Amino acid sequence: MNAPATITRDLRADFPGMVTGEGKAWHYLDTAATAQKPRAVIDAMARALGEDYATVHRGVYARSAEMTLAYEAARRTIAKFIGGHEDEVVFTRGATEAINLVAQTWGRANLKAGDRILLSQLEHHSNIVPWQMVAAEVGAHIDVCPLTDDHRIDLHAAEAMLTEAHKLVALAHVSNVLGSVLDARQAAALAHKVGAKLLLDGCQSAPHMGVDVAALDCDFYVFSAHKLYGPTGIGALWARKELLADMPPYQGGGAMIDRVTFERTTYADGPQRFEAGTPAITEAIAFAAAADYVSAIGPGRIHAHEQQLVARLRRELGAMNDVTLFGPDDSAGIVSFAIDDIHPHDLGTILDESNVAIRAGHHCAQPLMDYLKVPATARASFGLYSTEADIDALIAGIARTRRIFGKG
Amino acid sequence: MNAPATITRDLRADFPGMVTGEGKAWHYLDTAATAQKPRAVIDAMARALGEDYATVHRGVYARSAEMTLAYEAARRTIAKFIGGHEDEVVFTRGATEAINLVAQTWGRANLKAGDRILLSQLEHHSNIVPWQMVAAEVGAHIDVCPLTDDHRIDLHAAEAMLTEAHKLVALAHVSNVLGSVLDARQAAALAHKVGAKLLLDGCQSAPHMGVDVAALDCDFYVFSAHKLYGPTGIGALWARKELLADMPPYQGGGAMIDRVTFERTTYADGPQRFEAGTPAITEAIAFAAAADYVSAIGPGRIHAHEQQLVARLRRELGAMNDVTLFGPDDSAGIVSFAIDDIHPHDLGTILDESNVAIRAGHHCAQPLMDYLKVPATARASFGLYSTEADIDALIAGIARTRRIFGKG
Repeated sequence: MNAPATITRDLRADFPGMVTGEGKAWHYLDTAATAQKPRAVIDAMARALGEDYATVHRGVYARSAEMTLAYEAARRTIAKFIGGHEDEVVFTRGATEAINLVAQTWGRANLKAGDRILLSQLEHHSNIVPWQMVAAEVGAHIDVCPLTDDHRIDLHAAEAMLTEAHKLVALAHVSNVLGSVLDARQAAALAHKVGAKLLLDGCQSAPHMGVDVAALDCDFYVFSAHKLYGPTGIGALWARKELLADMPPYQGGGAMIDRVTFERTTYADGPQRFEAGTPAITEAIAFAAAADYVSAIGPGRIHAHEQQLVARLRRELGAMNDVTLFGPDDSAGIVSFAIDDIHPHDLGTILDESNVAIRAGHHCAQPLMDYLKVPATARASFGLYSTEADIDALIAGIARTRRIFGKG
Repeated sequence: MNAPATITRDLRADFPGMVTGEGKAWHYLDTAATAQKPRAVIDAMARALGEDYATVHRGVYARSAEMTLAYEAARRTIAKFIGGHEDEVVFTRGATEAINLVAQTWGRANLKAGDRILLSQLEHHSNIVPWQMVAAEVGAHIDVCPLTDDHRIDLHAAEAMLTEAHKLVALAHVSNVLGSVLDARQAAALAHKVGAKLLLDGCQSAPHMGVDVAALDCDFYVFSAHKLYGPTGIGALWARKELLADMPPYQGGGAMIDRVTFERTTYADGPQRFEAGTPAITEAIAFAAAADYVSAIGPGRIHAHEQQLVARLRRELGAMNDVTLFGPDDSAGIVSFAIDDIHPHDLGTILDESNVAIRAGHHCAQPLMDYLKVPATARASFGLYSTEADIDALIAGIARTRRIFGKG
C-alpha cells in the first residue's frame, strides 16, 4: 500500500497571519484553538462586505438576489464538505451555539424526566454544559463514558453503559486536547441499537480529516468555521432531515417565520426556521471559501501531513525522560504533553519569546484535566500550513526553557 | 436657534458598495435593511482576520493577549457609543439574538403565569416572536399598544393599559417601517411607574440618531452592527448591570464558565456569562470601527442630514395624488409609501433597472401591515451617505414606473 499523499507545497505564503509583527516566521502551533485564514477567505470576506454587499432573502433589487444566491450556495458548499444535503445545514454562530440549539430544541422536545444522555470524560465544555442545562430543566441524567488507557473514548464501556433510557449520545469526533479519533461508525451503531441519537462534535474533525456524515451514520454533526480556516462568528449544524423537520424553533424573529399575528405565529420550514434575523451573510460566504480552500488541498492529504508531524513530535517528546505524553499515537494533529517541574503556562510564555505559539491550560475540558490529574497541559496543534521547521522551533524552545529552569 | 449641522462632505467614496457592477452610482435606499460598510470597517475586518489574527481570552502568547485587548476595547467602544458601561454590553449575533437572550434568561427567570408584556402594533417580528415564545412557556399574556393617527406608538394608550401585572414593556425606539421615533424617556417613566422594565429595540435608532441609554432610562437596549455600517454576524445587548448580574446563563460552553465538573458547573460573572464559545472576534473589532466611523461624523449630524432628506422626499411624494404616505413627518430616515394600483414589488423591480434600490414587502412587521390594511409598503430609507441625487433618481424612477403602468 502506498503512503498517503501529504502536502508538499509551502502553504504559509497563503496566510498573512503566519508572520510576526517583525516580519519573521511565526511558529503557530495553536490551530486547534483557532486556525489562521488564507488570503482567499479574507478576500471573500472583504468583497462580500464591499462591492457585493446587500441583504439576503428580502430585497427586490438584483444585488440582494445575487447575495441570496451566494448565501445559499455557501450552504450547499458547507453541506457538501461534510457529505450532507443543503436542506440539513443550519448556519449558527459556531459549534457551541449549534450544540445549544440541539439541546434547547430537539432536547427540550424529546428528553423527559428519567431519560439519560451519554457523554464522555474528554468532552469540551461546549459538549457538556448545554446538556447539563437541558438535563436540569427536564430531569434527565448524564452518564460519563470513561477513556481507554491510551485516552480514547472507551466504546466497550459505552456499550455496557447504554440502555433504552438513553436518548442521546454526544461525543467529540476528535478530542480537542488529545487528538484521539472516535470510531464514529461504531458509536453510531451502539447509540442506534438502544434507540438513541448520536451527536458528533466535529470541531476538530472537520479541519483535520475528511468527514462524511452519511458514512459516519451520525444524527447531528456540528463544527465551527474559525477552526476550519474560516471566519469567526459562524459555524454549522448538520441534522438529519427528518430530525430537523420535527425540531421546534430556537430563536424567534424575522426570516424564521411563515406568518406573524399577535394571536398566532407560524414558522418557516427547513433550516430557515433556525436562522432568525439577518444571518451572518458575509461570514457564510467566507466560510464556504474556507471549505473550498481545504477541499482543493484535500482533507486526506491534510490528515496525512498532520499525522507525519504528530508522529515526529511524539517521537521526539517521548524520548525526553521528563515529558509525559497524553493521548494516542495516531492523534489527529494534536499533541498534549507535560514537562516535569515546568508549568505549561511558563513553557508557553517562554516559547512565545522564540515566536512559538502553543496553548497551555485546561483547553475548556476541565473534567478531562481532573481525569488526567493535571491542572493543565501544554498543547501543540498542527494545521495544513504547519512544517517541520515549526517542530524544530518548538524543540529548541523546550530546550531553552529547560535551561532557564536550571534543568539543562 | 441654529439649524443643526448636516453632512457636507460626500461620503460615498468611503463605501465600495455604493457603486454598481458597471461602475455607476448606486442609489441605495435600503439602509434600514442593512447599511453599506465604509472601507474603514472592511479594512479592520481584513486586518483582524489576517496579520492580527489570534484567539482571545486563552492564549499565553502575545498576539492572543493583544487580540483580547482589542476585543475588550471593542466592547468599551460599543458601550460608550450608546452611553453605557462596558460591564453592561454583551456581544450577540445581532439584535434578534439579543432580544431572544433577554426573553430566555431574564424572561424565563422573571415572568410567571398571569404576568403581562406590553408590545406595540408596529414592532418588528424580532420584538414579537421571542415574547410569544416565552409567554407561551410561562403562561404570560401579551398586550398590544395601538398607534396614533400619525403612526407613532400611542403612549397615552400605553399609560391606560399598563398595570402592576406588566413586567416588561418592549418597544421599537424607531420603527423600521415608518421611522416614527418613540419618546423613550416617557415610555421608561410609564413602565417604571408600574414596576415594569423597558426594553428598547434600537436597530433603527443607533444608526439614525444619538443614543444615550442613561438619559433614556431604559433597562435593556439592543442593536445590530450590520445596520450601523458594521459587519454581519454581530450585535449588542446592553442591560443594566444589576439586571445582567441576576440573569441566568443563556448558552452553555467554553468561556462562559467558572468551573465545570460533571457534578456541578459554575458560571462566569458579567458579560462573559452570556458569550459561550469563541466569540465573533473579528466582527467585534469591525463593529467598533463602524461605531468610530459614525462617531467621527456625529450622530446628531447624521440625524439632521437624514431628516432633511426625509422632509424633501415626503414633500415630493405628498404632492402626488396617487401616493399614500405612512408614518409621521419627523421620521428618522425612513419613508414608507404606496402608489395606487402599483404593487410595491413591481415598483421595486422597475426602480432597480435605474439603479435605485428600495425595499418592498412587509418589512418583518406583518401586524403593522394588517393595521395599515396593506399587504406591503414601498420603503426608502436613508443613511449617512444618502444624497439629494438619490431622491432625484427615486422620483424619476417613480415617474418611469407610472409610464410603464400606463398611469403617466
